[in-house]
Amino acid sequence: MLSKNKQKLITSLTRKKHRDQEKLFVAEGHKLVTDLLNTTLKCIFLIATHEWIKNNSLPNNKTELISVTENELKKISTLKSTPPVLAVFEQPANIINFKDLSSKLSIFLDDVQDPGNLGTIVRMADWFGIENVFCSKGCADIFNSKTVQSTMGAIARVKIQYVDVDKFFKSIDKLEVYGTFLEGSNLYDTELQPNGIIVMGNEGNGISSEVEKYVTTKLNIPNYPPDSATSESLNVAVATAITCAEFRRRILK
Amino acid sequence: MLSKNKQKLITSLTRKKHRDQEKLFVAEGHKLVTDLLNTTLKCIFLIATHEWIKNNSLPNNKTELISVTENELKKISTLKSTPPVLAVFEQPANIINFKDLSSKLSIFLDDVQDPGNLGTIVRMADWFGIENVFCSKGCADIFNSKTVQSTMGAIARVKIQYVDVDKFFKSIDKLEVYGTFLEGSNLYDTELQPNGIIVMGNEGNGISSEVEKYVTTKLNIPNYPPDSATSESLNVAVATAITCAEFRRRILK
Repeated sequence: MLSKNKQKLITSLTRKKHRDQEKLFVAEGHKLVTDLLNTTLKCIFLIATHEWIKNNSLPNNKTELISVTENELKKISTLKSTPPVLAVFEQPANIINFKDLSSKLSIFLDDVQDPGNLGTIVRMADWFGIENVFCSKGCADIFNSKTVQSTMGAIARVKIQYVDVDKFFKSIDKLEVYGTFLEGSNLYDTELQPNGIIVMGNEGNGISSEVEKYVTTKLNIPNYPPDSATSESLNVAVATAITCAEFRRRILK
Repeated sequence: MLSKNKQKLITSLTRKKHRDQEKLFVAEGHKLVTDLLNTTLKCIFLIATHEWIKNNSLPNNKTELISVTENELKKISTLKSTPPVLAVFEQPANIINFKDLSSKLSIFLDDVQDPGNLGTIVRMADWFGIENVFCSKGCADIFNSKTVQSTMGAIARVKIQYVDVDKFFKSIDKLEVYGTFLEGSNLYDTELQPNGIIVMGNEGNGISSEVEKYVTTKLNIPNYPPDSATSESLNVAVATAITCAEFRRRILK
């Protein structure tokens, strides 16, 4: 049975303001919740159907376990089809040592506003061993439920930090900063360092002039056939993925 | 002023059944609608605010133009923030000559269910000069409003066709069929033909056994660092993009 207070808390966590206050976020669905339970993230409480609880190994006894009906879950779920389990986790405190960045490839997102795009980028970063994703304050919130769902668990492994643009780039000033631009040089013909920052821009406006001034190498993902009339641009998660894949391909070669 | 009949029609077009009956679809927003007006797609009618009509060059006089208030647009829009313009287009009849496929790179989607993923893949296909995207019957509907929006206009250039799996693969039986699998060979070390079919699978289940039997080359997108514990998979639009980018990189080299 779900208390009114818990129900209220979960509903309140659909809003960033409350997530920030409580330092909590919600994850839904069997696959995502079980994945996150096997990470270092701290689960505060877990709400599941009787059947789910019966069939799944449960987290440690510090986690409160609440058994509910499917109807009760339906009331609090944000998903289209009601999941058998929903869990509230503590937001990880992602403390990043800026000095360590010089030996790593990292991503900086400049006002990436779509929660799904942000989550997809974090999932892809995890695949390519990119440990740190920095976000400008205009980016979507990483703890938005759509973002959490589309990270597919990578939210527990990739460190995401919201930073002030100028402070961030001034603190990493010896690193190569790559950004994609229409006038950039061909991604495949340009020398790429194994470490540095890959900057990706806003869905509608690309990289802002505020961030562009820190970019040291402008790249372009060539379309095909060259000079044909195609889409004007790629989805930002797709462009990030193609760029990161090329950085990793160079090292794997 | 928007008639009740038109309002009803637009609302009915949020459902696939009605879109199929009427052979129409809806596009919303300044950028998407103006892009589509400049293609071969036939616009049946266009609904816009007085201000938008005043500031934009209008389509040919075969298109009915309806001037409305923002409030009227709000009632029929499916977008979060009400756009200044919405248009109803005829669904293109995408007749694909299967014999032509032997000289092209095409995509086959096996039950890609998320409308956003489908739209993002079509946009990316356009960028990489992939003219034809084939969909199994279990895929999302290309004329779903979310899909239309995420194609960003590529829906007018890329031909999308829903096909029967067996019939399709039997009709292209001399072409190389590529698919991504965990046990596939490294994408970057495998010989890739410039032409063929790239198969991508369902978000949760990957490529079905029904389709797998037609795959002639199994590929794998290597994660980084090799053998590390990362995300188990990539978003399907991201995986499609990385694969297509590599096919095009080989030709551009």
